[in-house]
Amino acid sequence: MAFTFHQKIKFRQCDPAGMVFYPRYFEMMNDTVEAFFENVLHYPFAQVMHGNGVPTVQIEAQFSAPSRLGDDLDIVLGIKRIGTSSLDLSYQALCEKEQRFTATSTVVLIDDQGRPTPWTKKIRGILEQHAEGRN
Amino acid sequence: MAFTFHQKIKFRQCDPAGMVFYPRYFEMMNDTVEAFFENVLHYPFAQVMHGNGVPTVQIEAQFSAPSRLGDDLDIVLGIKRIGTSSLDLSYQALCEKEQRFTATSTVVLIDDQGRPTPWTKKIRGILEQHAEGRN
Amino acid sequence: MAFTFHQKIKFRQCDPAGMVFYPRYFEMMNDTVEAFFENVLHYPFAQVMHGNGVPTVQIEAQFSAPSRLGDDLDIVLGIKRIGTSSLDLSYQALCEKEQRFTATSTVVLIDDQGRPTPWTKKIRGILEQHAEGRN
Amino acid sequence: MAFTFHQKIKFRQCDPAGMVFYPRYFEMMNDTVEAFFENVLHYPFAQVMHGNGVPTVQIEAQFSAPSRLGDDLDIVLGIKRIGTSSLDLSYQALCEKEQRFTATSTVVLIDDQGRPTPWTKKIRGILEQHAEGRN
Repeated sequence: MAFTFHQKIKFRQCDPAGMVFYPRYFEMMNDTVEAFFENVLHYPFAQVMHGNGVPTVQIEAQFSAPSRLGDDLDIVLGIKRIGTSSLDLSYQALCEKEQRFTATSTVVLIDDQGRPTPWTKKIRGILEQHAEGRN
Repeated sequence: MAFTFHQKIKFRQCDPAGMVFYPRYFEMMNDTVEAFFENVLHYPFAQVMHGNGVPTVQIEAQFSAPSRLGDDLDIVLGIKRIGTSSLDLSYQALCEKEQRFTATSTVVLIDDQGRPTPWTKKIRGILEQHAEGRN
Repeated sequence: MAFTFHQKIKFRQCDPAGMVFYPRYFEMMNDTVEAFFENVLHYPFAQVMHGNGVPTVQIEAQFSAPSRLGDDLDIVLGIKRIGTSSLDLSYQALCEKEQRFTATSTVVLIDDQGRPTPWTKKIRGILEQHAEGRN
Repeated sequence: MAFTFHQKIKFRQCDPAGMVFYPRYFEMMNDTVEAFFENVLHYPFAQVMHGNGVPTVQIEAQFSAPSRLGDDLDIVLGIKRIGTSSLDLSYQALCEKEQRFTATSTVVLIDDQGRPTPWTKKIRGILEQHAEGRN
């Protein structure tokens, strides 16, 4: 049961070569995580920001084929590993059948002092359910 | 002989947590490569864009400590490997002595059909000189 | 019959004050025009870019109240005037009943030499129909 | 004695038409104001953000000629009017002798409740000196 975020490629995301400027892909990945927190975890970023944060501590991506203005991308988010206060995520972006990029990242839940803080039981429950459902 | 790009953290690069929003770091890395092409390779992007391109095909980064509004970052660019038409790069961002992020990426020189095309002898010469000078 | 573009305020659009960074509003306005061209004029930007362009030549905006992470904005686009090759647009952004910004802009259809070029009869027809329907 | 902010046009600021995407001009204007606050008013945004803010409440711009990758822009900032807690600014962007855009904006100093709060005597003194010196 993967979570999919849809993105139609906008003018503001394209570079002089007419292709998506790669830092915009990371903005899309952030939008994907943001939508996942709101729609699946029922823990929207606006609420997270009250005393917490979920910074991305590492990320890596392979851009296999260019995306162009107007392309319809489906960014499929998967859960790779649920840590005490971290989360390893995977991303695969498809335009119809063609793969555009794959990526993995780690986000960490922090408190207002910037220290890692555990996921609540409720959030962990949803994450585990979601991770299993994926298989 | 590393190439260093200076970046004072701007308001537009910071998020509601008051820290650099990580996709902005990738914009800074792109600015760094762009400055390197202009100042070291004497092959500015405006010239590259006439019939060629240098897309980033993979990138990975570790964000070790947050950067805040007004911080002075030095982004040190290194050459890891010179391929026929590719280039493996390393990045280290420092604020005074503190490391903020490290990253590596691969860029590829392409022609107007999107096919890899070899670095010219002149560019390769400068790249090799620069890579050696670094040791 | 106004055209409305919905925008849920994203993390990437907010600044250290926790409010939308105003240049992001201009990106939203551009997204609004882009959606209007695709959905109403059936002339998507990807098609416009083949030999033409629609640069914004002037724009002005009043930001009456701040928008925050998670806010649901409706950006209402209106047609103020249809020129030979230009278009005067109005924007009003609402969050529920509260006005967040109002703006007006002028876009011009240009050819591949950057010269103004008239709207086709078909596009003009749709624009006129849409402008009338608004009253 | 106008304040000038230099901006070499970067790849990340250009659109599929190979020209500056206009919302990026507003980011440049914000960078200009940010540099003015730091270098002229000695009141950097990092310090402003401790309990205050300087939101832009209105802005209008005319884009007279396109800017392209690699262009060297000088953005000249002028003071039009010093209010109790507001500031009317003017911008003119030049590439050599060619004008690229002109703009005006109003920023307001606010407190942590979002209410307008007067410029300090010291800031007002510098602003007045700067405004006069311009003539």
